[in-house]
Amino acid sequence: MANETRYRVGILGATGMVGQWFIRLLENHPQFQVTALAASDRSQGKTYGEACAWRLPGERPSFVESLVIQAPSPPLDCELVFSTLPSGVARESESAFAAAGYPVISNSAAFRMDSDVPLLIPEVNPEHLALLDVQGNGRKANRGFVVTNPNCSTIVLTLALAPLHTQFGVEAVVATTMQAVSGAGYPGVASLDITDNVLPFIENEEEKIERETQKILGHYRDQKVSAAAMLVSAQCHRVNVSDGHTVAVRVKLGRGAEIHEVRQAFETFTGMPQQLRLHSAPERPIIVRDEPDRPQPRLDRDAGGGMSVTVGRIAPDRVLDFRFVALGHNTIRGAAGAAILNAELLVATGRLPMTSKNPYPR
Amino acid sequence: MANETRYRVGILGATGMVGQWFIRLLENHPQFQVTALAASDRSQGKTYGEACAWRLPGERPSFVESLVIQAPSPPLDCELVFSTLPSGVARESESAFAAAGYPVISNSAAFRMDSDVPLLIPEVNPEHLALLDVQGNGRKANRGFVVTNPNCSTIVLTLALAPLHTQFGVEAVVATTMQAVSGAGYPGVASLDITDNVLPFIENEEEKIERETQKILGHYRDQKVSAAAMLVSAQCHRVNVSDGHTVAVRVKLGRGAEIHEVRQAFETFTGMPQQLRLHSAPERPIIVRDEPDRPQPRLDRDAGGGMSVTVGRIAPDRVLDFRFVALGHNTIRGAAGAAILNAELLVATGRLPMTSKNPYPR
Amino acid sequence: MANETRYRVGILGATGMVGQWFIRLLENHPQFQVTALAASDRSQGKTYGEACAWRLPGERPSFVESLVIQAPSPPLDCELVFSTLPSGVARESESAFAAAGYPVISNSAAFRMDSDVPLLIPEVNPEHLALLDVQGNGRKANRGFVVTNPNCSTIVLTLALAPLHTQFGVEAVVATTMQAVSGAGYPGVASLDITDNVLPFIENEEEKIERETQKILGHYRDQKVSAAAMLVSAQCHRVNVSDGHTVAVRVKLGRGAEIHEVRQAFETFTGMPQQLRLHSAPERPIIVRDEPDRPQPRLDRDAGGGMSVTVGRIAPDRVLDFRFVALGHNTIRGAAGAAILNAELLVATGRLPMTSKNPYPR
Amino acid sequence: MANETRYRVGILGATGMVGQWFIRLLENHPQFQVTALAASDRSQGKTYGEACAWRLPGERPSFVESLVIQAPSPPLDCELVFSTLPSGVARESESAFAAAGYPVISNSAAFRMDSDVPLLIPEVNPEHLALLDVQGNGRKANRGFVVTNPNCSTIVLTLALAPLHTQFGVEAVVATTMQAVSGAGYPGVASLDITDNVLPFIENEEEKIERETQKILGHYRDQKVSAAAMLVSAQCHRVNVSDGHTVAVRVKLGRGAEIHEVRQAFETFTGMPQQLRLHSAPERPIIVRDEPDRPQPRLDRDAGGGMSVTVGRIAPDRVLDFRFVALGHNTIRGAAGAAILNAELLVATGRLPMTSKNPYPR
Repeated sequence: MANETRYRVGILGATGMVGQWFIRLLENHPQFQVTALAASDRSQGKTYGEACAWRLPGERPSFVESLVIQAPSPPLDCELVFSTLPSGVARESESAFAAAGYPVISNSAAFRMDSDVPLLIPEVNPEHLALLDVQGNGRKANRGFVVTNPNCSTIVLTLALAPLHTQFGVEAVVATTMQAVSGAGYPGVASLDITDNVLPFIENEEEKIERETQKILGHYRDQKVSAAAMLVSAQCHRVNVSDGHTVAVRVKLGRGAEIHEVRQAFETFTGMPQQLRLHSAPERPIIVRDEPDRPQPRLDRDAGGGMSVTVGRIAPDRVLDFRFVALGHNTIRGAAGAAILNAELLVATGRLPMTSKNPYPR
Repeated sequence: MANETRYRVGILGATGMVGQWFIRLLENHPQFQVTALAASDRSQGKTYGEACAWRLPGERPSFVESLVIQAPSPPLDCELVFSTLPSGVARESESAFAAAGYPVISNSAAFRMDSDVPLLIPEVNPEHLALLDVQGNGRKANRGFVVTNPNCSTIVLTLALAPLHTQFGVEAVVATTMQAVSGAGYPGVASLDITDNVLPFIENEEEKIERETQKILGHYRDQKVSAAAMLVSAQCHRVNVSDGHTVAVRVKLGRGAEIHEVRQAFETFTGMPQQLRLHSAPERPIIVRDEPDRPQPRLDRDAGGGMSVTVGRIAPDRVLDFRFVALGHNTIRGAAGAAILNAELLVATGRLPMTSKNPYPR
Repeated sequence: MANETRYRVGILGATGMVGQWFIRLLENHPQFQVTALAASDRSQGKTYGEACAWRLPGERPSFVESLVIQAPSPPLDCELVFSTLPSGVARESESAFAAAGYPVISNSAAFRMDSDVPLLIPEVNPEHLALLDVQGNGRKANRGFVVTNPNCSTIVLTLALAPLHTQFGVEAVVATTMQAVSGAGYPGVASLDITDNVLPFIENEEEKIERETQKILGHYRDQKVSAAAMLVSAQCHRVNVSDGHTVAVRVKLGRGAEIHEVRQAFETFTGMPQQLRLHSAPERPIIVRDEPDRPQPRLDRDAGGGMSVTVGRIAPDRVLDFRFVALGHNTIRGAAGAAILNAELLVATGRLPMTSKNPYPR
Repeated sequence: MANETRYRVGILGATGMVGQWFIRLLENHPQFQVTALAASDRSQGKTYGEACAWRLPGERPSFVESLVIQAPSPPLDCELVFSTLPSGVARESESAFAAAGYPVISNSAAFRMDSDVPLLIPEVNPEHLALLDVQGNGRKANRGFVVTNPNCSTIVLTLALAPLHTQFGVEAVVATTMQAVSGAGYPGVASLDITDNVLPFIENEEEKIERETQKILGHYRDQKVSAAAMLVSAQCHRVNVSDGHTVAVRVKLGRGAEIHEVRQAFETFTGMPQQLRLHSAPERPIIVRDEPDRPQPRLDRDAGGGMSVTVGRIAPDRVLDFRFVALGHNTIRGAAGAAILNAELLVATGRLPMTSKNPYPR
């Protein structure tokens, strides 16, 4: 039976925008089967069909229609949980699930900067998963743990920085984002605020990018991650785009590089997800476009099923060394798809032992 | 008679977007009266009312309705010309007018970088007008000359840099623009290209910003302008905004500064247009906003009648020294209003002698 | 003293979108002076400056900055109140003010269909004000009363229908609206719902248009208003426009009419506000545009200071008799401006006796 | 060999928006293989890869990259042509191809209203194909002919009307459209015209809908089509949507109907494409949605691969009998997909005999 070979998974925060993407992306997933939905809002106790207007194009997958939405606290009828809870409740809820023995694959910000929690982009820092071996005390009481993915704009930026950092060393990054409204969830940004407008402020976003980038590109040794020494400057803006974060980037490199080397570093970049042929891994994590007017959110956000970052406009910079524009789908590669790819890496590296006999961890 | 005390002016490029703004802004101007319209397109020979759909909110000023559109070559029935011709024809047409003795107040790119042509922002570099004393040969045969204003995004950026450069010295600038579609004129940007999208490319724009900024902030001595030594990096994007260019800026300063000094430099900035109380001069060239989510195009572009630049989000930067966001109305302060303010400065400084007896220069 | 000759007014619902428009439009009003602000939300007890982000272009009028927001219940330090409370609280609050002796000029839906409450468009049905002579019991205990203005889309439609109804009789109306997001208040419509989209649903809007139109165009006699017998069909849509409701209209007329008569009926339409030269009255309530592509929200919404309705595309219809497109500014003519014009008519017709001695009605 | 069993097809107008959709939709088509590209513009003589910026999301199909764009006149290396030429050149070019023996499957307006040319929606009026038996003289000299599909908004409307007309008779239709900018092609609508705006005018569109609907729903007998007697009124608007035409519809029916019968007529509607299981036929030509806020362009345009029309908001109407909102993808079901479905029906009904031996018709 196909079902028996798949992990039974719960989604915490199932009614929100990213929650809906989890459901969409897991609909026919070969390794995961959604068996439980939870939300922190007043939809608890209703079926998903009753509680929740489906906001993605296409029909709501029928398998969730009659699932009853539960509170985001254990136990849930599943073997692991994907979490995309709002920050207010994520820390407590995710702690509880980890303590109860559930692997928690989290898209929330709550634990990202904890020193024993991997902040993971599978192509970039899979070795950080070793933090799970020491992940602490309260949380892993019973084989539960927490793995996080970065903020949506950080992922786009850091995926693009990774090959440069590996090959040339990145000493400084100046990143200016133009972010899609879906990054704020639903209802999120009011139409009156963004029609014919740009918002130069996204709460905590600049700080997240600056800190998370250093952690992800940091070095794992002796059971901890040392943040990368690079300087990171981020200015963040909301623009009138539904999906797809655009980031204008300048970098200062540790050693001299020719522009064709920079281009090649992007184009040849690959990682464990590609080697292991993970289900959600795009063929190319980074797609280079040479047309002068690319990348564009509307044309490039769905590249690689929304899992590739597109890089264009690579050029020498007059203040730092090089500049380019990177773009990625913020709710796929930047959120739900990121977490799913993390989970696939956990499976492939043996960190998610199948427990098919148990209705849920005890 | 009121009319007799006003300069009779022609508009070259009268049917385009910026041409319409010239007409709107000059409608009740105390010093200038529009007496001639010219365009490079097929509208020649028609009345303005016939030839040209009015694209600005509100009624077309009635005084232009029956003016017949002429070719953009002298003579025209006027004493000076405002030009906003497309680059293809601007150089030849503006040369011809200057050679024929007309002062040419140009918004076009053609002559901006010529070494004897002032690239003028009245609050920033009025002393560059001294270039007119040496402005060359062919052009000024007969008291004609050319004065230019910068590119629309350059003006917003440079107005904001000026007080910092004066007080602290600016050594490097990293500017990332999010520019309005009106900057591309009409029809300009196709709706299909910008709806739900960002375009990371505006032809020649990055180069213009990088070069023009250095010239404007350069030093005038011995009949020439030495470009400022600062490094300038620009990345330009088109966003789905009708009017108002937003620029995310980082600066490296020549001497240490406290953030409150930076803020104060912006806020107290003033120049000749304010001292001379020029008609189009905003009370404050730079308006500082302390709310975390300002400036915004929709809320701030019309500040100071569209002639003020609004600066917000002033903060220390992790790579350069400080960062901030600047915003200005690209078709007013960045184009038609810029040229008109230039003309007002020429009047106020005695560089436009009244020639009311002549139907046009000979 | 100027102040002493102006009515002191309160605004109920002062923090919302329409509340901000009230403040803007009353800033320099010759007859009204804002002396009290109230809101139903958690902003009570704070100053307006603290409580409320200003969402209209331009600076917040300074006179409201330090006014403390109060609960929407009497007494308030004013002689009359403008109300734009959310429907949930409007009925109780407005009743209380009327019972306490305050004239209530309401933009809320609560009392619009009450048989003794005028649903007023000053150009259309000023005679309905006679309902105040019989307005009932509880409410007018102490010279207080309630006057309402219609729903924002109803006003645009009905102003356009009025001259046709007067001259030809309107037997049936088929109206299809394309409404701006500002009609839903703030935060109102989520950006994700309206970017690259049309929403074919606005709660209760179709019913409001159908009922309110019949009441407004109804006949006053013997102390009551008989609804007009016309059939009204409304289909309502939200489109990606900030301000300005567009209505595509077909009408069946009671008697034959030539198209030039229809056009002339629109163009020559005028009413009491024009005759009495009320402060907020536009010179022409209806502006006819003959260009094939007008009216357009961006170009026409501000006509007459936002108080004119623009009509275009008048043509014979193949199913009903004639068709046309009408457009008006939903938050000015359709809300705050409508209420203020109502108040101006009350003053001009002697229904608002000045009570300058009293801090508030007793 | 797979290729040998497919028709070799040319695309006239290959560089435009609809041309690109033809290429996308034919990329892996089981019956058609693109072997020739033609365009009326200056791209002739270049390869498609050189001549044409790809404007659809995703990569340009590689098979067209090196095809050289030719003039839109016979001969072309293909057995039939799909045409989406601009109206100026369509009539002459399509005539020439038909005269030269090519079946012409046209999306252009040129021949739609010719009395011997089928104006075809395969689910609605497949019997009109019989017009080909008498299609005239000049054109079919050599087995060539012309089959057309309707205007993009007409298709959406008429597909929705068809089941009502069959079951109840439609006596009058009042349709108000809110159309996507892609309907105007590329560059089409200027961003400045549609941002924060509605345009109440699309040239000739209202006339097209009124005439084409009557022809499509007309009766074929004795070698001609009699236009349906129904009255049709159309008001057309452009809204800020990329793809997906929304139509607000009222209908007067020939016989009384209950609302549940109307709903059922929509839901059970099916036609020859479904019976014949044509490759591009959606499972359901009409999808009924009962949520109060559907259909919406962003959520519903891609239903059935862009080939289904979604109907919602079915309700009794106060002036006519019933009302509803219909929505369809204008560039798929309304253009390229419509023509391809027409061609599939021609194949399935034996009207496109395979001529695999000939490089092209002679």
